[in-house]
Amino acid sequence: MKTYLDCIPCFFNQALRAGRIATDDEKKIKKLLDEIGMVLKDIPLESTPPETGRLIYKKVREITGESDPYKKIKIESTKKALSLYKSLKQRVEKSDDKLLVAIRIAIAGNIIDFGVNRDFDIDREIHEVLRKDFAICDYSKFKEYLGKTDEIFYIGDNAGESVFDRILIEELKKPVIYVVRDGPVINDVTYNDAILAGIDKVATILSSGTDAPGTILKTCSSEFKEIYNESKFVISKGQGNYEGLSDEKKPIFFMLKAKCYVIAKDIGVNEGDIVLRGINV
Amino acid sequence: MKTYLDCIPCFFNQALRAGRIATDDEKKIKKLLDEIGMVLKDIPLESTPPETGRLIYKKVREITGESDPYKKIKIESTKKALSLYKSLKQRVEKSDDKLLVAIRIAIAGNIIDFGVNRDFDIDREIHEVLRKDFAICDYSKFKEYLGKTDEIFYIGDNAGESVFDRILIEELKKPVIYVVRDGPVINDVTYNDAILAGIDKVATILSSGTDAPGTILKTCSSEFKEIYNESKFVISKGQGNYEGLSDEKKPIFFMLKAKCYVIAKDIGVNEGDIVLRGINV
Repeated sequence: MKTYLDCIPCFFNQALRAGRIATDDEKKIKKLLDEIGMVLKDIPLESTPPETGRLIYKKVREITGESDPYKKIKIESTKKALSLYKSLKQRVEKSDDKLLVAIRIAIAGNIIDFGVNRDFDIDREIHEVLRKDFAICDYSKFKEYLGKTDEIFYIGDNAGESVFDRILIEELKKPVIYVVRDGPVINDVTYNDAILAGIDKVATILSSGTDAPGTILKTCSSEFKEIYNESKFVISKGQGNYEGLSDEKKPIFFMLKAKCYVIAKDIGVNEGDIVLRGINV
Repeated sequence: MKTYLDCIPCFFNQALRAGRIATDDEKKIKKLLDEIGMVLKDIPLESTPPETGRLIYKKVREITGESDPYKKIKIESTKKALSLYKSLKQRVEKSDDKLLVAIRIAIAGNIIDFGVNRDFDIDREIHEVLRKDFAICDYSKFKEYLGKTDEIFYIGDNAGESVFDRILIEELKKPVIYVVRDGPVINDVTYNDAILAGIDKVATILSSGTDAPGTILKTCSSEFKEIYNESKFVISKGQGNYEGLSDEKKPIFFMLKAKCYVIAKDIGVNEGDIVLRGINV
């Protein structure tokens, strides 16, 4: 997905939010916004938003001196999600279509996104997403591809959300490679976050090789690209991965909640809609 | 009022909105945002937001070649307001406290602000503001000052809103000087807009001598400053004028709806609240 003009004010909002989490020093935050202002002219609309996101959070780290401002928040999100794990598992067990309920739970977890949201309520979100109609639901195709694959390439998104991904992974009943970011960026899931979520018990964890808050293939490691290119069944969680992969030519199933109107418009749904969309399927 | 860090993303939002009204050319709008990015480092937090607003809308004019992008919108707003004039006058006539109802109507008109809002519904706004409790209501002081003054210095804000100001002016029953912006900026009221609203029938129109979207005294004309300095009763409408005058040492009555959380916080009220606040009274 390209960068829309509407993304530009949002970049400054994201920088402001991250800056405030990293420091109380107003001068440092102003410097951060000033520096993003200065590089804005070098960001073409043809680039994807996570490319700029990467640059923004690099500047947050440089200017505030905080290498992982969201560390505490990520641990809290994961613990909160883990506290819900047992009851959500029971929910899946009791349902007529376990796989679909697990998909809904994985999408509900996508609300734990500090890049887009200031506030969210994970309990309310689960309640809502378990009942909400999908705006796009390529579930039949999803099951068809799942049936014929021998391995799933699952690209994670946020810390905390990974616990919900784990519930889906447990219903996929096939070997899963779970992709995490190589380094901390916003509250995106890294190796340590995935371990805390218990992903290592259900999948093989793989680093994307990049700290971009989304999958930008040109910045990913050779190892990642090799496995990704060979994979016949890719699940991509969340907005950042959608932004990086939406123009790909291979089959990918995107699972997300459209949390901003720019992405909703790009997908062709409304803000707040939930989506299970297969491309090239 | 100083510039808050939260104002910075908002500057880009405002530029984007104004750019889109002025042109369909995405490249020009990107250039506009890039140029604002480049000057951001020269905007200190100590400056008032209308100072930056002035700079933004100057760039909108320069880059898009549109000297008055909101011209059509301003005429439409004024015509819409004029269509409501008669029924609002009847509303005032029928009420037990004509002055207070006229103040409420003048505040309701403050919603016609294309700097802050994307969408608003003036009919709904009137309905709401006529019933809503004031978060701050220095009405007794207002009447006290009105009683002892022989002339009112009334600083207007937006086109369209001026029709609602006219209803209040007609209830003040004293000579009024009505201040307009010197040149077009956003949908702020200029001389021509005030004439269309019929302000010339009820007040003497005076230019601020500046095209800033708010009253920044250092950029106002000597004539403005002289009359302002001598005035004993100043009414200041809207956010832009509040931002410029909130630290003044003379008695001023601010009438506005707090349309953004930064201003609401600065005043000490909630977003969406209506305010009649006298300072130094």
